[in-house]
Amino acid sequence: MTDERQDPSEAGGAADVAGLAARFAAAWNVHDARAFAALFAPDADFTNVVGVQVTGRAAIERLHARVFATVFRDSQLSIETTRTRPLGRDLFAADVSWSMTGARTQDDHVRPPRYGVMALVLRGSGEALEIEVMHNLEVSSPRPTGAS
Amino acid sequence: MTDERQDPSEAGGAADVAGLAARFAAAWNVHDARAFAALFAPDADFTNVVGVQVTGRAAIERLHARVFATVFRDSQLSIETTRTRPLGRDLFAADVSWSMTGARTQDDHVRPPRYGVMALVLRGSGEALEIEVMHNLEVSSPRPTGAS
Repeated sequence: MTDERQDPSEAGGAADVAGLAARFAAAWNVHDARAFAALFAPDADFTNVVGVQVTGRAAIERLHARVFATVFRDSQLSIETTRTRPLGRDLFAADVSWSMTGARTQDDHVRPPRYGVMALVLRGSGEALEIEVMHNLEVSSPRPTGAS
Repeated sequence: MTDERQDPSEAGGAADVAGLAARFAAAWNVHDARAFAALFAPDADFTNVVGVQVTGRAAIERLHARVFATVFRDSQLSIETTRTRPLGRDLFAADVSWSMTGARTQDDHVRPPRYGVMALVLRGSGEALEIEVMHNLEVSSPRPTGAS
């Protein structure tokens, strides 16, 4: 480990990441694209579960305004677990596992519950913590089989 | 942007990341789990396309020794594109898109070509660059549709 990773300013990192994840779910669950996008850095990179990539808070807001009006209009997101890895001063990697109900297909059928893991890079602290990079990964079950 | 992201030591970051991606593919394509795992930090966090998570170079080597002997024994990986985002001094996020031929199903049928994106957090420089965090994401086509 480097000195950076032992910086005492990181002590609150896990709690700050959990707070960010809670705000993420809250914005999702009221389908508020502006509040959702505000959780990201102005120049954030976002990749969704099918590999679509957009850069910047404005593009993230546009993308989510569209899906919150259509396939995710009735969806509810729950945060299951959060795992935080300090990377440096006020900089973290985090895995946030999630479940979702009420998502719809493109032809408007309700989908069964979905599960996934968000891989995040976050900068800042407290409520000013922002997502700089997000990749979302859909998985087939709530608890992937461990490997050894 | 923070001062950290403008550090001149990052000028070689994109080239270093491209070099790491080339070594990743080279180790994969000779199915050498030890060489593959050596690209990761000793305490790296690895998550595969189905959400299986392991921590540490030794666990990454064990997991890949198994798959290089079975479902990936004839597989060939190609790096398609690499996108690098400086996060701080000698610290980078990168998206590495890939394609793969010759993978097999659990019941030993050859699969059609696969495509994906590796989301990496990397630390270091030159040939000492190491993967600290990797999440792999499989996508359905080589060029996901952009969103706006």
